Amino acid sequence: MRAATIKDGAVAVAEHENPVPGHGEVLVRVKAAGLNGADLLQRKGFYPAPPGSPPDIPGLELAGEVAELGPDATRFAVGDRVMAIVGGGGQGELARVHERQLMAVPENLDWPAAGGVPEVFTTAHDALFTQCGLKAGERLLVHGAAGGVGTAAVQLGRATGAHVTATVRRPEARDAVTALGAERVLDPEEFVDAGPYDVILELVGAPNMPGNLKAIATGARIVVIGVGAGPKFELNLMALMGKRASLRASTLRARPLEEKAATARALERHVLPLLANGTLKVPVAQTFPLDAVHDAYEAFAAGGKVGKLVLVM
Amino acid sequence: MRAATIKDGAVAVAEHENPVPGHGEVLVRVKAAGLNGADLLQRKGFYPAPPGSPPDIPGLELAGEVAELGPDATRFAVGDRVMAIVGGGGQGELARVHERQLMAVPENLDWPAAGGVPEVFTTAHDALFTQCGLKAGERLLVHGAAGGVGTAAVQLGRATGAHVTATVRRPEARDAVTALGAERVLDPEEFVDAGPYDVILELVGAPNMPGNLKAIATGARIVVIGVGAGPKFELNLMALMGKRASLRASTLRARPLEEKAATARALERHVLPLLANGTLKVPVAQTFPLDAVHDAYEAFAAGGKVGKLVLVM
Repeated sequence: MRAATIKDGAVAVAEHENPVPGHGEVLVRVKAAGLNGADLLQRKGFYPAPPGSPPDIPGLELAGEVAELGPDATRFAVGDRVMAIVGGGGQGELARVHERQLMAVPENLDWPAAGGVPEVFTTAHDALFTQCGLKAGERLLVHGAAGGVGTAAVQLGRATGAHVTATVRRPEARDAVTALGAERVLDPEEFVDAGPYDVILELVGAPNMPGNLKAIATGARIVVIGVGAGPKFELNLMALMGKRASLRASTLRARPLEEKAATARALERHVLPLLANGTLKVPVAQTFPLDAVHDAYEAFAAGGKVGKLVLVM
Repeated sequence: MRAATIKDGAVAVAEHENPVPGHGEVLVRVKAAGLNGADLLQRKGFYPAPPGSPPDIPGLELAGEVAELGPDATRFAVGDRVMAIVGGGGQGELARVHERQLMAVPENLDWPAAGGVPEVFTTAHDALFTQCGLKAGERLLVHGAAGGVGTAAVQLGRATGAHVTATVRRPEARDAVTALGAERVLDPEEFVDAGPYDVILELVGAPNMPGNLKAIATGARIVVIGVGAGPKFELNLMALMGKRASLRASTLRARPLEEKAATARALERHVLPLLANGTLKVPVAQTFPLDAVHDAYEAFAAGGKVGKLVLVM
């Protein structure tokens, strides 16, 4: 099979052996695979794939058709439309995925949209609901709301009855984020005065943390998923104590099978029905054929788009 | 009535009007009232009592007999033995307490023991179970384990089937903490190498935090309840992300009635049966009559004791 392949800090298409599905696994003929920030880090030589994933084929999510069932795989049939987060290897023509990580693709989603669902909706759902217990009526702040996880979080917050405030750095992204359901879309300078917030999703990094700590309500939860702008700051524990608040931080990629499977079950219950009925949208900014993977990565690195960049095969 | 009274940075006994129980409240004839670190802060003019509590009578916990029922108070009868955390005013001969905050005193506890239960067991239970979800088989680290909350936490961890490691600063306190059920009692210098830990109860402050972040297991929860040694440190969010960990911080005193009542219900379910059957002990280091309140505060400030200092009336 052909697959996006990282070698010496660059990404290009190369030939690989076809993967063979193991016990409980499914071989997926990949139709679409979204790009994520982690792919760029991996291209640079950071954030290596966890054990069990192809070390040189990037891609943390995929959507496609079931091509073959490994021993004892029973959840899907050949030809079914499926999607999943994977530890790596999503950006190839074929991928093997444990059936407990797979989710059925709602009928109304085309392949590019499906290829852009798993990583951002799993990340946002896990952060907002599994970790922070976001509830209807709470005030949610999403930093970096124009990115993939941000657009998913704004929509999930809105769909759950939270009051969503979003920050975006580029003024030209404001309308798109408003259209996704944010009640207020602010410049990063403005969010403290517009608080307080019950849940803050931090997708930018430590520079926002002093402001976050000023803007939290009693009982607030801050969850940090991205630290692209830097990871370090001086924390005054009194600021957390006084608000009886918590600070959580997480990554998805390194989790073991049972935890990734649990996220898939959570999405099946809460998110897939909202995708199927059109409440949640998958903003796809641009698609690229596999052969243009280099251009796709460059476009992703350049930024400035609201929505997913997706490889289609 | 007579009560410990804070004036101009000193504590002494003074006369006060008898409190009158309001709607749903109970007048308690106080028999014993434990001392806590907050009392010393309040004596210095910090940590003022929350609205609704006597501003000049210290005391965050009490045990005594029901002397009178306010309108619609139905949970207890006159003469019942009760105990509670209060926002202030615990160290007087009479105190009014909402009946939803009161708990029955187990028969086997004498007054000094009962007066030392509410604050430390509520604080430890809330931190370990309500906030951190400590489970059997997990590895618990208790910093500052020789103090009141620490001794409660060590026992609660042990009684729940957790593996308890404790740090104590004074070598002479080690045997007492071992006797409470800690599997290992360490010097504060030694805890990092003895990790990892699933739950860390931080009763000392920020100086332990760099070590805590090195010593956490995947999925760990750190809960900060005390920062006597200082509140500030440089936090690298990557250390939390890599372990999918969380940092919580809390205080008890400022919580509203419904939250304090919820902690009382949690203690009735989980802690009172363990006190009643002798699994949990209330180490009382020394008792003082109300008239010796100045000496009691001085002894508390001097430290060096394992167990509660309790005023008896």
